[in-house]
Amino acid sequence: MNRSALYVGEQTFVVEETASAPPGPGEVRIDVAYTGICGTDLHIAHGAMDQRVHTPAVIGHEMSGRIAEVGEGVEGYQVGEAVTVMPLEWCGECPACRAGHTHICHRLTFVGIDSPGSMQRSWTVPARILVPLPEELPLAHAALVEPTAVAVHDVRRSRLVAGEHAVIIGAGPVGLLIGTVARQTGATVTVLELDPHRRALAADLGLATVDPSTVDVAEHVRQATGGAGADVVFEVSGSAAGVRIATDLLAVRGRLVVVAIHPTPREVDLHRIFWRELEVIGVRVYQREDYVEAVRLVHGGQVPAQRLISRIVPLAEVAQAFQALAAGGDVKVLIDCGGDA
Amino acid sequence: MNRSALYVGEQTFVVEETASAPPGPGEVRIDVAYTGICGTDLHIAHGAMDQRVHTPAVIGHEMSGRIAEVGEGVEGYQVGEAVTVMPLEWCGECPACRAGHTHICHRLTFVGIDSPGSMQRSWTVPARILVPLPEELPLAHAALVEPTAVAVHDVRRSRLVAGEHAVIIGAGPVGLLIGTVARQTGATVTVLELDPHRRALAADLGLATVDPSTVDVAEHVRQATGGAGADVVFEVSGSAAGVRIATDLLAVRGRLVVVAIHPTPREVDLHRIFWRELEVIGVRVYQREDYVEAVRLVHGGQVPAQRLISRIVPLAEVAQAFQALAAGGDVKVLIDCGGDA
Ligand SMILES: [Zn+2]
Ligand SMILES: [Zn+2]
Ligand SMILES: [Zn+2]
Ligand SMILES: [Zn+2]
Repeated sequence: MNRSALYVGEQTFVVEETASAPPGPGEVRIDVAYTGICGTDLHIAHGAMDQRVHTPAVIGHEMSGRIAEVGEGVEGYQVGEAVTVMPLEWCGECPACRAGHTHICHRLTFVGIDSPGSMQRSWTVPARILVPLPEELPLAHAALVEPTAVAVHDVRRSRLVAGEHAVIIGAGPVGLLIGTVARQTGATVTVLELDPHRRALAADLGLATVDPSTVDVAEHVRQATGGAGADVVFEVSGSAAGVRIATDLLAVRGRLVVVAIHPTPREVDLHRIFWRELEVIGVRVYQREDYVEAVRLVHGGQVPAQRLISRIVPLAEVAQAFQALAAGGDVKVLIDCGGDA
Repeated sequence: MNRSALYVGEQTFVVEETASAPPGPGEVRIDVAYTGICGTDLHIAHGAMDQRVHTPAVIGHEMSGRIAEVGEGVEGYQVGEAVTVMPLEWCGECPACRAGHTHICHRLTFVGIDSPGSMQRSWTVPARILVPLPEELPLAHAALVEPTAVAVHDVRRSRLVAGEHAVIIGAGPVGLLIGTVARQTGATVTVLELDPHRRALAADLGLATVDPSTVDVAEHVRQATGGAGADVVFEVSGSAAGVRIATDLLAVRGRLVVVAIHPTPREVDLHRIFWRELEVIGVRVYQREDYVEAVRLVHGGQVPAQRLISRIVPLAEVAQAFQALAAGGDVKVLIDCGGDA
């Protein structure tokens, strides 16, 4: 049997019992253990993506589980094996795919948004999106591999190295993960966050924090860097103010990484970009190598999964889980999908 | 004797005869052959930089000439040798200099703006800013080495390679030079320009041109690139519209090079930068290696100096030269400073 959380629109979920879908050729069926709720899922539940998500829909893509059934022609995977997925499917034929940038395929399918996701007990997916997990890694922790891969990708694209100074604007779940991943490079990391609760969370993780409403951040960063400025700024706030301050903070040849989604064009100080030869770098999802590194960091504890998971809620209470997350205060909320037996 | 064009403010130049300054230790005195007028010089003459330029001032930095006198301790240069200058002086001590980015020194002196320039017959400068020229290179052509070095720097920072497609927004002198330099990489180059005269100039140089007021440029570039978009866009127009179209034109992982000076912040489509993992790259002046390449390209004729020089005006008529350039229609106007004898 399968049990799914169906998003039916207007912030409403219905939990339904159905038959499990047996895996077709090239597919596997997974017993899903945990599914994390991410910002995109919240957006969907608030109706902001109704044009893209066709209800009723099973959403969710930050998952972990075990292989329950293996379809015809699938090689290299065994029943019982722990896995997560890299929830991207690409066409292989568009200019982006042909240039090797399959994660930005012109016709990208994001599994869990554009196709059924993992907020269910039993999930059937193409084996090509699987990512194997170390046997010792707790499956609850493994649900953080996907958002960690986002952070790994962002830090990799920033070219941050040991001895450099990185500033992260915004300490939501993505900002916190970028902070913990950035720290692994040997860089100094400072997190800017207006909200005192989020600031406390960042501090708990050992990250240096600054309240930009009470501190002259540009002066603070100048002093912390011997007058140079920051080598990398990650803009994770999605705000016009975040973009404005980002260019002010950067050193000569500094890099501004655009992580957040800015729904409207933002005023950017192109004169400063010219004057200091700054770079702005767009980042989107991840590639296989980012997953490999994310598994390593979650497994090794450099990404403190245990401390980032605020609560675990049974599948039957999925609606309450979304409400709790929307209310703020939680970092990561996991849905227990029932497959961690 | 020396003869100088003194900028005295309010679009007024006075030509004055004075004694030549003998070179001090580490300096050389140059008989200046030609000095080109660049956009910055025009700005100065229009009073736009009165806060930075202290009148009376000798301006000019796109020059060529021959060494007339060598000061104490100068090695490697002989009287009679053809030279140009890289008109930058840096402190060597600020964070940018210590990081190796001396051309973006926090206390950069731009020779010819912040210190006396080359619109004079006899010019005394530190030997460290000299760049030797091939003996066979006509000195008039050599006056184009400095603006060519700007273009070389911009193309180098863009990482443009053979087989890629570059779009240049704006066909002023800088845009045309970027076009001729970009073409040398083996890339396909398209120039967007509203002004029919400038468009004709670009076409004369063998560059493909498009009038963005009559052509759907994004569609044009998509078709020209098999649906991919441009790999590199050089924004040389300095306009809000140029910035707007630039992000629309770029392929996945494309690079937008900010060449023009944008006096106010511009609205930038950060969502597109995120969605396609675009990069924005600031570029400013040049480094020694750009000069080496610029000398090679002007010398070899890949940069067609002869065709870019619209007129050569004697030093006594410097005011008329500025007026002609401001009126439009010229690409490069050179001042004959009298040292090409
Ligand atoms: Zn996610
Ligand atoms: Zn594709
Ligand atoms: Zn110039
Ligand atoms: Zn310096």
